[in-house]
Amino acid sequence: MSLKINFGRFLETFKTISEIGATERGGNCRLALSDLDKKARDQLTEWCLQINCKPRIDKMGNMFFRYENTNPGVDPICIGSHLDTQPTGGRFDGVFGVLASLEVLRTLVEKDIQTNFPIELVNWTNEEGSRFAPCMIGSGVYSGKHSLAEGLGCKDADGKTIDAELQRIGYKGDASMDHPMRAYIEPHIEQGPILENEQKNIGVVTGALGQKWYDLKITGFESHAGPTPMHLRKDALLAAAKVIEAINILAIEFQPHARGTVGELKVFPNSRNVIPGEVNMSIDIRHADIKSLNKMEEKLISLINKTSAEIKVEMQINKLTEFANIEFDKRCVNAIRNSASDLNYPNMDILSGAGHDAVYISDVVPTGMIFIPCRNGVSHNETEFAKNKDMEMGCNVLLHTILEIDKKDI
Amino acid sequence: MSLKINFGRFLETFKTISEIGATERGGNCRLALSDLDKKARDQLTEWCLQINCKPRIDKMGNMFFRYENTNPGVDPICIGSHLDTQPTGGRFDGVFGVLASLEVLRTLVEKDIQTNFPIELVNWTNEEGSRFAPCMIGSGVYSGKHSLAEGLGCKDADGKTIDAELQRIGYKGDASMDHPMRAYIEPHIEQGPILENEQKNIGVVTGALGQKWYDLKITGFESHAGPTPMHLRKDALLAAAKVIEAINILAIEFQPHARGTVGELKVFPNSRNVIPGEVNMSIDIRHADIKSLNKMEEKLISLINKTSAEIKVEMQINKLTEFANIEFDKRCVNAIRNSASDLNYPNMDILSGAGHDAVYISDVVPTGMIFIPCRNGVSHNETEFAKNKDMEMGCNVLLHTILEIDKKDI
Repeated sequence: MSLKINFGRFLETFKTISEIGATERGGNCRLALSDLDKKARDQLTEWCLQINCKPRIDKMGNMFFRYENTNPGVDPICIGSHLDTQPTGGRFDGVFGVLASLEVLRTLVEKDIQTNFPIELVNWTNEEGSRFAPCMIGSGVYSGKHSLAEGLGCKDADGKTIDAELQRIGYKGDASMDHPMRAYIEPHIEQGPILENEQKNIGVVTGALGQKWYDLKITGFESHAGPTPMHLRKDALLAAAKVIEAINILAIEFQPHARGTVGELKVFPNSRNVIPGEVNMSIDIRHADIKSLNKMEEKLISLINKTSAEIKVEMQINKLTEFANIEFDKRCVNAIRNSASDLNYPNMDILSGAGHDAVYISDVVPTGMIFIPCRNGVSHNETEFAKNKDMEMGCNVLLHTILEIDKKDI
Repeated sequence: MSLKINFGRFLETFKTISEIGATERGGNCRLALSDLDKKARDQLTEWCLQINCKPRIDKMGNMFFRYENTNPGVDPICIGSHLDTQPTGGRFDGVFGVLASLEVLRTLVEKDIQTNFPIELVNWTNEEGSRFAPCMIGSGVYSGKHSLAEGLGCKDADGKTIDAELQRIGYKGDASMDHPMRAYIEPHIEQGPILENEQKNIGVVTGALGQKWYDLKITGFESHAGPTPMHLRKDALLAAAKVIEAINILAIEFQPHARGTVGELKVFPNSRNVIPGEVNMSIDIRHADIKSLNKMEEKLISLINKTSAEIKVEMQINKLTEFANIEFDKRCVNAIRNSASDLNYPNMDILSGAGHDAVYISDVVPTGMIFIPCRNGVSHNETEFAKNKDMEMGCNVLLHTILEIDKKDI
């Protein structure tokens, strides 16, 4: 456990990448397949070539840099994340995982450590989805969630496709999407407040929450706030308020690991002295366990019916999307937990509430994730921040995790 | 009580006015001091001159048509309402009161009824306030709520003043704003659902609700819906939902005659998987009794403080405006109630929840209002509708009310 990465060296690379698309308010704007994304990809390639890790670029522009081992022909252990950011993104989301992986490769090279399996650094294309919807398209095509044609055909707001933009910036590779991995480990900032709140430096991610997304339309009756007595109202916003409260109670009832959120809500006609005639709102429920998530959905439908009758409004609920929860590979999870504990780093098991490339990859490869805290849980924001101490610990956990996986016959 | 108005004659005038500014969906668009408003004013003048009721136009363009009595020099009993409408207004709001008053004058003339006091039909300028804010400006200047300079200086969206538009359409009168009245009675559609719901044809309006209007700003903490557990959230929309529910409970607690409404609400950033960081909303509370209204305000402040602490959000409440409740003159109210009852018209006492010219006038003149039902309480809408039977009853109640007031020494 005395083997450690060189954190000063990590910080230099972090500073260099942070300058590519730096924003005035201290964040990063490096949209997928933009000139700035190309610049970051070029920089990463330069660093990897310096340690003789050669690139492999697949048809979706996903980049793999290989630290070669003594047994050519066996599947690699992959580590990495993504270099693209939100338009007003932070410096840590994605970047930390890529540069932690680079630092691990450099450490292996520097210390001349011979692994049983090749180790590859991965940079996935268009994780954020802010330029090209949907998000996580590089890992999505890799893992079979989307076809290659779908992936390449994604368009930005100007109608430019991923295919065209990959060619333009020179990252349309010819390597096959079929690229078996022995394991995939992704380090990432938590993007939530749990580790900070629990004063842990490392989150051992055991899986990701399942999600169900809905739109709810509430139709009441628009009338004057003054002349309409309370008992003759059909107030769509009052009904919405009851649903919002009930969703909160529902999520609390299904603890631990349940979430219930109304993030979007619009009122019509939205006029001070008119009782709202219509409300449109989003509903997002999540849980670590699909049975509980289904039970939450049942209760959601029932509370909507109850409120609809009580407030005398009509409610139409429409499910937009749903994902089952996933569980990461136990051997990967154990390797991460053991590494953190052996390094004496305060750690805890945690679930990912958000989507990540690792969530898609876990469907086809034994996968794990390492979380480090971020200040106030803030992410997708220029003020996003992770402490040096936590990033350093994250790098060291990654190093020892792959060494442990490298030893075992998983 | 056998004396009745001629409803067929009323309907003809109603049909004629409805055609001035008729909208495709069956409503009226006749904005204050527009060419269409001029046309309606000209038509009213023509009808009044036909029965020898001469106009008096004051400096705000308020029109008074006088049925002369045998005692010149005494103050008139005034009846009327307004001819201007909302941009997508109905055919009844305001117009019913003006034409009911015209029909009463015609009946007096036709039957050669000599009253002790002159009877005047009034058409107030810019009641709706949709072209020139604020609303009820003609009666507002008459009653001293606004100065004449304020009234004439009101501008529309193009910067045109009431003064200039009155001159343009030829309704800038030279009569003084000082025009004492013995009494003022305004017939109007209810603009609420109470009479219809109680199956009454006549509402004897005893007063108008007091109102307090606020803006509430709720500041929580914007964070990801997935990674942020329920107990670490500061959800501004959840806090808003609790306030909306509490305002509803508050209004129910202060029945009868209490209202509590949130008509306007905006969420930031209003994104499906982001916990809302900020909500801005309106609050409108009303009550028939100022002491109860003040008590409601106290409780509102206290529930806001409670919710703010419970959900760990900041709340800033800002009072925009407040009006005390008003009580109409008991002699006028009794005259209306007696007339309706003597005519055997199903009637009930009712409060006005909305503002009317009569509410302003009541400050300086003994005032009363006669309500008739409107379908579903819908008003300020092209589908606004009142039944012939109810309009006819409203006209007859107006006739007998002024005859009763005319007899008494009020």
